[in-house]
Amino acid sequence: MARSNRPVVAIDLGGTKYIAAVIGTGGLVLSHVYCPTLSHEGPDKIISRLVMSVHSAAREAGVKLRDMGGVGVAAAGIIDINRGLITEAPNLPGWRNIPFRDLLKDEFKIPVFMLNDASASALGEHRLGAGRGLDNLIYMTVSTGIGGGMIINGELYNGADGTAAEVGHMIIQVDGPLCHCGHYGCLEAMASGTAIARMAEERLRSGWKSILSPMVKKGKGNITAEDVAAAAKKGDVLASQVIDDAAAYLGVGMANLVNLFNPQMIVVGGGVSALGERLLRPARKSMKQHAFKLPAGTVRVVKSALGADSGLIGAALYARQQAGGKP
Amino acid sequence: MARSNRPVVAIDLGGTKYIAAVIGTGGLVLSHVYCPTLSHEGPDKIISRLVMSVHSAAREAGVKLRDMGGVGVAAAGIIDINRGLITEAPNLPGWRNIPFRDLLKDEFKIPVFMLNDASASALGEHRLGAGRGLDNLIYMTVSTGIGGGMIINGELYNGADGTAAEVGHMIIQVDGPLCHCGHYGCLEAMASGTAIARMAEERLRSGWKSILSPMVKKGKGNITAEDVAAAAKKGDVLASQVIDDAAAYLGVGMANLVNLFNPQMIVVGGGVSALGERLLRPARKSMKQHAFKLPAGTVRVVKSALGADSGLIGAALYARQQAGGKP
Repeated sequence: MARSNRPVVAIDLGGTKYIAAVIGTGGLVLSHVYCPTLSHEGPDKIISRLVMSVHSAAREAGVKLRDMGGVGVAAAGIIDINRGLITEAPNLPGWRNIPFRDLLKDEFKIPVFMLNDASASALGEHRLGAGRGLDNLIYMTVSTGIGGGMIINGELYNGADGTAAEVGHMIIQVDGPLCHCGHYGCLEAMASGTAIARMAEERLRSGWKSILSPMVKKGKGNITAEDVAAAAKKGDVLASQVIDDAAAYLGVGMANLVNLFNPQMIVVGGGVSALGERLLRPARKSMKQHAFKLPAGTVRVVKSALGADSGLIGAALYARQQAGGKP
Repeated sequence: MARSNRPVVAIDLGGTKYIAAVIGTGGLVLSHVYCPTLSHEGPDKIISRLVMSVHSAAREAGVKLRDMGGVGVAAAGIIDINRGLITEAPNLPGWRNIPFRDLLKDEFKIPVFMLNDASASALGEHRLGAGRGLDNLIYMTVSTGIGGGMIINGELYNGADGTAAEVGHMIIQVDGPLCHCGHYGCLEAMASGTAIARMAEERLRSGWKSILSPMVKKGKGNITAEDVAAAAKKGDVLASQVIDDAAAYLGVGMANLVNLFNPQMIVVGGGVSALGERLLRPARKSMKQHAFKLPAGTVRVVKSALGADSGLIGAALYARQQAGGKP
C-alpha cells in the first residue's frame, strides 16, 4: 500500500489535554488515547508521555508505526511550520523553540507534519464539517484562549511561517485588559472563557449580587466560564450580562475578520461554543453592527460540526495531504 | 490585435481627485487626465465629467475607445465586484449601490472591470512595484482614510464579494473615536491623515503650545495632516507627539495584520506615507511590540514604490488580466 493511503497517527496537543489517535482513510478513528497534558511539567516530561501514548494508540489499533503513512500534529501555539518548531505557546509554559517535529521524527522514524491546532480544525471543518465545498472560511475556537484557522481559495492558508490566523491576538482595545500573550486588549482577553470568568469575578468583587456570589468569597480564580454559563442559563442577571458582553466583543472580532477577509463562513468551535445560539446570536448581532453591510450580509456564522475532534481530524487530513495521499 | 493586448483605459476614482488614463502594455502611460472629483456634486455629475475625461484621454492617446482592450476602474469604497456596484463609499457622499460598471459599459461599449482602489494598488505593487515576486503581501494606503489590498499565494485576494482587505475599518479601540464609516475606534479614526489633524486640533484646543497654535484660533478644521507633518519636521513637540501616536496606532493595525496573515511584506502608500521613515520607523517598532515574534521578524514594512500611480497601474493590470491578456 502506498504510504500516503495508510493509516496515520494524529496528535492534538493542547494546554489542558492531548489526544493521540490512529486514523484510517475517510476519518475513521481506529484508536484514541486521551490524557491530561499537565502543562506545568514542561516539555520534556510531556513529550515522553506523549510518545508512550502514541505507542499505545498504535498497539490498540493493531498497526505498526513503520506501516503508518505519517504523523500529523495539531499543536497549540505559534508554530514555525517550515522548521517544525513550537516557537511559543501561551498555554504551554516553557515551550520555546522546541523542535517538536524532529523529536517525533527521530522517535517514530516516519514523516511528521505539524500545524497549529486551530488551523487543523479549519481544515477538518472545511473537508468534513460545516464548511464543505466553500472557497473562503475562518474557523475560530473560543475556549481558554481564542485561536483560528483560515481556508482561502479552498486551501489552508498558513502565511509565510505558518503562524497566520491568530485571531485571538487581534487587538480590539489598545488599552484593554492584559492577555496571556503579554499584550493588552487582544480579543482573547475580552471574549475567551478566561475573559468570561475574569469579568464575572471582577463584577462580583465590586459588589454585584448574583447566584455566583458565594463562590467568589472562597478565594480568587474559583469561578470558571462553565459556572458563568450555568448561572446565565438559570436567569442570573450578572452572568447573562457577562455572556452578552463577551459575545459582543467576539462580534467585534468577527466584524474585523469580515471587513478583512469577506469570508463566506465563520465556524465557531471550542469549549465556549457549547453555549450555542446563546453565544452566537448576540455575537452575530454585534458583528453586523460593526462590519460593512455587504460582507456582513454574506457571511454565515455557524457552530462547529466536528466539535472537539476537529483538530485531530484536521491533523490526520493534513498528514495525509502532505504525504500526497487521498483525504 | 487580440483585445487583451490592446491599450486599456484606467480610471482611479477617489474622494479628492480622479484620473482617467490610457495605458499600453508594460504600464506605459499614453495619456493622463487628472481632475478634482468635487465629491459634494454627487454621483450623476461626477460620472458625466468622468465620461468626458475618458473621451479626452482616448483622443489624447490617439486610440479609439472601440479599439481598446477594456476599462479598468479602481474606485474608493465598498465594491461588489460580482455585480459591479459601488455599494457604499465613506469619501464619496451619495454613492449607494451605484451600478458603476454597467453605466460605463453602456457608455463605452467595451468590457469594464472594477475593483477597490487599494486592491488595485496592491496588484500594482505586487506586479511592478515593491513586492515583485512575493507570495503574500498587504498594501495599506494611509491618506484621508486608510484602505488596503491583499496578495495571497501570488494573486489578488478579493473575498466573497470583493470587499476584502478593508484594513482601515479594523476596530482597534472598541470605545475609540468616531470613524467616517459610522463605527468607533477603527484604525482609520486613529492613524489616518484625518486622525492626525483631529488629534493635533484637540490637543491645541486643550491648551498645548505649538507653532500650530495660531492656526487653531481661526476656527475648526483648519489644520491638516500636512501642517502637522511640516511642524513636526521643524521640531515642534506637539506635532511630533501626534505623528508618533498615529504611527503607534498604525503599528497596532499592522500587528493585527501580521498576526492574522503572517505576510512577507506590508507596503505603505497614500499621502501620509510621504512622511517616509518618520512614520514607518515608529510604526514598525509598535508593530513588533504588539505582534508575535516569529511573524513580526519575517515581515518587511516598506514604502510604496509606485506612489500615487499605484491604483491607476493596478486598474490597468486588472483590466488586462481579466480580459485574459499579458500584463
